Amino acid sequence: MRAAGGAALAAAAVTAVALAVAAWRRARPVREVLFFPSRPCCIEALLAEAAEPGVPARPCPCPLPSGDTALSRLVRRLLSARRSLDLCLFSFSCPQLARTVQLLHRRGVRVRLVTDAQCMGLHGSQIGRLRHAGIQVRHDQHSGYMHHKFAIVDRRMLITGSLNWTSQAIQTNRENVLVVEDAEYVKAFQDEFERIWEEYNPANYIFFPKSSK
Amino acid sequence: MRAAGGAALAAAAVTAVALAVAAWRRARPVREVLFFPSRPCCIEALLAEAAEPGVPARPCPCPLPSGDTALSRLVRRLLSARRSLDLCLFSFSCPQLARTVQLLHRRGVRVRLVTDAQCMGLHGSQIGRLRHAGIQVRHDQHSGYMHHKFAIVDRRMLITGSLNWTSQAIQTNRENVLVVEDAEYVKAFQDEFERIWEEYNPANYIFFPKSSK
Repeated sequence: MRAAGGAALAAAAVTAVALAVAAWRRARPVREVLFFPSRPCCIEALLAEAAEPGVPARPCPCPLPSGDTALSRLVRRLLSARRSLDLCLFSFSCPQLARTVQLLHRRGVRVRLVTDAQCMGLHGSQIGRLRHAGIQVRHDQHSGYMHHKFAIVDRRMLITGSLNWTSQAIQTNRENVLVVEDAEYVKAFQDEFERIWEEYNPANYIFFPKSSK
Repeated sequence: MRAAGGAALAAAAVTAVALAVAAWRRARPVREVLFFPSRPCCIEALLAEAAEPGVPARPCPCPLPSGDTALSRLVRRLLSARRSLDLCLFSFSCPQLARTVQLLHRRGVRVRLVTDAQCMGLHGSQIGRLRHAGIQVRHDQHSGYMHHKFAIVDRRMLITGSLNWTSQAIQTNRENVLVVEDAEYVKAFQDEFERIWEEYNPANYIFFPKSSK
């Protein structure tokens, strides 16, 4: 009788420890580092699943594998957005990431995008496409660059690093991206985003300034 | 008697709590975010103090204040190096940061520097000066960029972000730098540094490759 009681007590203790560990893991902020160049990969299945969850995606005819790569991990993190996505990007010309952002916008996520005025005019920039889709875009009007490259998902997860959102950077450069949920980093970057968003309000734009760039 | 004992007990408890808080603060990893552009500042006093600790620095004749800025904070973090400084920098043309690195090298800190081959040939690059001072430098030989911008101090503190180490970036761009002591981030970047350091070993250089850049 006493042995049975002891065994039950031990089992309860083991369950309690397992539950505590699981809770600790859930509560632990995400910390991930992605290094580029990414292996080539197809993200069609990821986008299809995000667009119509539960509906089997049609196989993509492209020859690329749809494996676990730095790019697919970055896309997954972005697709986890449910309410908001704040983007502060020097250069944005990667069509795959533009489609990811458009999909989130269609899904009702509030997307705000800040970019660099000089970069957004370059060939291949996706800014026009995103604006056309109805996404709010603001840009600098200074001689210096708006050189940040970060995203904030749901005001909770910071994605930042050296990576410009261009196909060249993703496929050929040595780059890094940190995924961070620690509140002190997220808050600092969210505050910086809000500062820039207000500063770049179109009401403050001065077109054709006298001081040339 | 009992009251005196109680007071002593309370004082001991307060001391214990204060010591515990101090220990927790010391054990807590550094987490700092620096945003640029930095306010203009003079770092001469910082460099002089690091070169000859305890010797009063001669006042600098330049008109810049020597206040607390993003640049001075970055320099302070770098000057905290005692054993090693691993640098992985796309572009390095800021003379103040080059002097900081040279000072550490003179102080016996083991400095290793990885950079981008295309960038290091540009006007104003500090790479030649650092090599001339005896600092080990390695570079890529690929068509993609070595686009990282990070430093690791004493294999313990990671300094990374969007900031290229150029005067323009520091003085005029919107940029970010994270200072991180969390072991998982530091280890990931240290591993990336060691991979690149080995890959860019001069023994592997192929000069005048047939595939043009």
